[in-house]
Order: sequence, then structure tokens, then C-alpha cells
Amino acid sequence: MRRSDYGRPLDLRRGVVEMAHGGGGRAMAQLIEELFLHHLDPDAGGAGDDFAVLALPPGRVVMATDAHVVTPRFFPGGDIGALAVHGTVNDVAMAGARPLHLAASFVLEEGLPLAELERIVASMAAAAREAGVRIVTGDTKVVERGKADGLYITTTGVGVVPEGVEIGGARARPGDAVLVSGPVGDHGIAILAARGELGFEVPVRSDTQPLADLVAAMVAAVPQLRCLRDATRGGVAAVLNEIARQSGVGIRLREEAVPVRPEVAAACEFLGLDPLHVACEGRLVAVCPGDRADALLAAMRAHPRGREAAMVGVVVEDAHHFVQMETRFGGSRIVDWLHADQLPRIC
Amino acid sequence: MRRSDYGRPLDLRRGVVEMAHGGGGRAMAQLIEELFLHHLDPDAGGAGDDFAVLALPPGRVVMATDAHVVTPRFFPGGDIGALAVHGTVNDVAMAGARPLHLAASFVLEEGLPLAELERIVASMAAAAREAGVRIVTGDTKVVERGKADGLYITTTGVGVVPEGVEIGGARARPGDAVLVSGPVGDHGIAILAARGELGFEVPVRSDTQPLADLVAAMVAAVPQLRCLRDATRGGVAAVLNEIARQSGVGIRLREEAVPVRPEVAAACEFLGLDPLHVACEGRLVAVCPGDRADALLAAMRAHPRGREAAMVGVVVEDAHHFVQMETRFGGSRIVDWLHADQLPRIC
Repeated sequence: MRRSDYGRPLDLRRGVVEMAHGGGGRAMAQLIEELFLHHLDPDAGGAGDDFAVLALPPGRVVMATDAHVVTPRFFPGGDIGALAVHGTVNDVAMAGARPLHLAASFVLEEGLPLAELERIVASMAAAAREAGVRIVTGDTKVVERGKADGLYITTTGVGVVPEGVEIGGARARPGDAVLVSGPVGDHGIAILAARGELGFEVPVRSDTQPLADLVAAMVAAVPQLRCLRDATRGGVAAVLNEIARQSGVGIRLREEAVPVRPEVAAACEFLGLDPLHVACEGRLVAVCPGDRADALLAAMRAHPRGREAAMVGVVVEDAHHFVQMETRFGGSRIVDWLHADQLPRIC
Repeated sequence: MRRSDYGRPLDLRRGVVEMAHGGGGRAMAQLIEELFLHHLDPDAGGAGDDFAVLALPPGRVVMATDAHVVTPRFFPGGDIGALAVHGTVNDVAMAGARPLHLAASFVLEEGLPLAELERIVASMAAAAREAGVRIVTGDTKVVERGKADGLYITTTGVGVVPEGVEIGGARARPGDAVLVSGPVGDHGIAILAARGELGFEVPVRSDTQPLADLVAAMVAAVPQLRCLRDATRGGVAAVLNEIARQSGVGIRLREEAVPVRPEVAAACEFLGLDPLHVACEGRLVAVCPGDRADALLAAMRAHPRGREAAMVGVVVEDAHHFVQMETRFGGSRIVDWLHADQLPRIC
């Protein structure tokens, strides 16, 4: 597209999203070219086809999708754009796959400042580069003022699972070990703090980050990995309960083994939250055969995104599929699967 | 999942979407199982992994994504659920690909009646069956009352292009023929009528439908097909202008050759709209070498979704990349590429 087709360039400093930006005409083409493609695919040279042809290496292809509605849109450690890349890249990686391509779809609210949209799209571009994925196709719709909350972003990822890797939530077996890749609950507490709902300052940043490289290192070290799941809504507790139910097993955790930052523990205590129920966006739970647990832990700790990994429990036989925790004081309690997250719109 | 994990079943008659349904806990699992999977994948037996492994035949893999925000959600000839399947299936098909898998992501507004959501999901399931695709993975988020307009659905499709097929918007050449697969503008006028914005009754149904089978028949008959694009926002006029710009050519249409239903023509005349600018959701524009145009037209007309296809124009050399139309009265006018669609939230 030639710039002259649009008249004046988009006003990225003072302009706002208008209904015309979703109208399929020149205004939309200009928004796509001067804002979206400028950051996501600077070589594209203008809006093109409504599909992308993917270059894929051999292997099984996996797909995952995630809508992102987090509020606030900017928070310590990230924003909705980076989160929208990480969330889907991580879902793909949890198959043991290398994420390669993303599609991004935007529902924009009329009146959203273009400067804010540009900041979010630039953050997506940076997150995609860091995660080694390309955003290859997209879509933009605009809804009237009051019909969205700034913007919602759905990303869909495609990746490829290497030969011989078989990972899924139904594969845990009694005797397996359960590991987490780092301290739990940072993201949820960072979001709460950014909403001003804590009433006090908490120096916690979201843990949002891409986990595909960490997964690749884990798969290389322990190809027998059974389950991987990133702990988002519902936290580690929800993930463990899902795995217990999918695999038809029980899980026993040791409370003192679960890494929680002191600031997060303090905020949780103040709020009456269990850190195991607080969302992360850059932590995963892994299950592997017990005799491979040390090798897996070593591989995780050797990776910058798993330095604080820990072995937190074991898989046991249990007809009730309970997740139980041995407390610091020698007791035992059930780690429940809650009706809902305690915090809405966390991702 | 065992039904007893949830207590009472979802109240699909009188229940509404609650914030808890997006919370990653039991309430969300119940919604996914008893409503989404019940219709989309009855054999799944409960919520599982956050990714899907795809079975793909050999060939180039293509991906397309589309957000759907149409209002009203139900209209003559379709609803947002069917549209969300057709829109993305058609984008994938426009690569000359056979669409195979869909991911579906939902942003639900608190308070949306579950009965309405179920009707939409059932419609998606029926549309997917008809289009020969499987909805293999998904995501659900819930936002507070007043933060969405009922629901928004993003679907992302993956398909495979057969060997030897090369289709794209930049491939049109002077001397090529331009065809449309049926009457234009039905969808836009049906939506306007359903919104009650016409002030009179118009017996027009949306043309929303899957076009992959038609495309397969076209590719089989004329493998040299150059461009395919479905005419949605901006109508046939936007599609032709996009192809002209991408390919660096001009296009000449004959007005009398463009099929328009009399009811649509009358509504357009009353409203001062050009039918070429009114959205379709089940019509495509095709460009092929001039000497293959008769074969392509015959193949289209032999297919139930292309019975009313027509040859509407030719590709010409034009440094300005204009789309021009010879009018019924022997004149000529430029078919402009508008700033925006005349009708917002049409898809």
C-alpha cells in the first residue's frame, strides 16, 4: 500500500480507535499497516491475504488458543500484549511442543487511545521475538464505546512436538514426582496490587514469561516427562486437581517444599488467600517418573526460567483423586479445587 | 469428570453466565463440560489439556483467525455461532486449502443467558459438522456486566493446501477473468433489517455459509486459479480494490453482470447504498486466467453453493490500480474503496 492512499498518517500520539478502524475499508487498512504491521511484520509492506501459509518442521502439530481480558492492561512485569503472547506460547509448549506461529485477533473499544494500542502491540512484538514465534496473521474488530473494556486479545498458537515426546494431563502414574518451575502466585498478587485492591504496596512483579525454551531443555533432559501444565487461573492447586482427575490418581504435596516469595506469602496471609490458588503466568507444573526427578530438577535449575524450580510432591494411588498437603506442622489437609478463582480477569 | 464433582447440573433454562464461569475452577469446568463439550465434542468426557494435537494430511498448512462481534446475535439465515465457523473456514478456504481444525475462544458477558449461549454453541457445532471441520480446542473468559455485548467469539482455523495450488491476492494478471459466486449484499441487508434499521420488512436471509467445498470443486476444475477472497466487511468493492492493489492491476466490471437480488437492490436504492459495498458472508470473488473462465464458471454453477455464480469483469493494466464499472447506461464510474464499511459490526 502506498502511504498516499490514506492521506495523512495515523495520529499515534493523540488519535483514538474509531468505529471506522473496524470497517474493512481504508481506515482499517491504515491501522493495520501503520500500527499493527509496523511492529509485528515491518517487511510485509501492507495488508495482504486473510491467511498465512506456515513453514512447519516435521512432527505432530499442536494448536492452542487463549482470550486475554486482564485488567489493568499494564501491570508491574507486563501488560496485556506480552501476556497474550506468553499465555498461548505456554499452552502450546505444555504439549512438549516448540511454538512457532501465532494468530492474533483484537476486539477494540471505540475511544481506546492509539498510543496505548501501539504500546501493547509493540509489547506483543517484543514478546514474540523473545519467545521465538512469529505473529503471522490477525484480525481487528471495533465495538462501540462501553461494549468492551479497552481491548480483548485472542491469540492462537501452532507448534510442533518432536518425535518420541508424549505429554498430557492423563499420563501421571503413582510413584511419579511433581515439580514446579518457580515461586507461585506472583502474577495474581501483582495484578491485585496494580488494581489498588491491597491497600498497601507490594514489591511483586508478574511472573509472565514464555516457557518454551525451558520446556525444550526439560524434554531434552527427560524425554519421559509425563505432564506439563502452566498454572494460570486457579493457580497450582487447580492444575494439580486437573491432573489428578485426568490421570485418576492422587497427589501429595509437602508445604515446606512449595516455593513462595515472602512478599507473596505475606500478602496472601493478609488477604486470607492460599498461594496455591493464586494465578501465575510464567510457572509450570511438571510430572515425571520418580527416578528421573533429580535429572529434571537439575535441568530446570540450569535454565534461567527455572532457576528457582523445586520438587514439591509425589503422585499416589487415590480413588478419590485428592490433592493433599503435608503441612509444616506435620498435619495434612486437602488442597481443594475451588468453585472459581478468587480473582477475576487475571489473564 | 464425574457429574458429582459439580453438585447440581447447570441450569440451562434459566441460568446466566457468572464471573465464576471464567474463574478456572469447578464452575468453569462444569460450563465447559455440560455446555461446550456436550455440543462440540460429546466424546471428550470432560475438560482436558489446553492444547490439541492435530491430524494433518501432507501439504502446506495455512492458518486464519477472525473475531466475531456481530449484532444482533441472531438474524435471518444465521447467528454469531454459525458466522464464527463460516468466517474462519472461509478465510482458510481462500488459500485454496481444505479447512480441518478450528480453535474457538469466547469472551462472555456476565448475565448472558445460558440458554442463549447453548443455542449459539449448538449452532457452531452444526456449522462445523456441515463444513467438515472439528472444533478441537478452546478458551472461555468472562467479563463483568457492561464490559462486552453478550459475547464475542474468535475462531482460528487450520487447513492444508493441496500440492500445486498457489492462490493469493497478488497473483491477478491483465487478461484474467473476475467471477463472483452468487448475489452480493444479502448478509449486510439481512443484518440491517434484523436491527430494525430499515423501517420496512425485507425478506432477505444472510448468505452466511461455508465455502470450502465450493473452493475444492473450483480448484479441481481450474488448478490455475489465481485469487480467491470472500467478500465480508467492505463487500465485493473492498475485495476487488485489495486485489487490484496487491497485484498492481486494474479491474473492469460490468454492472449488468453483477448478481444482486431484487429485494437487496431495492433496499440499497432506498438507503443510498451501493450493493458492491454491502457485506456478504458466503460469497467469494475469484480471479482466473481468461481462457479458463468458462470452465471455472461451469464448475461453480454445478455446485450448490455457486449456482448463481457469474463472470463480472476482467483484469486490466492500470497504473492507478482502479476498479472501474461500466454502468448499465454505457458510462463508466470508479468503484471506490471506502474509508469504512457503511455498517458496523456486521460480522
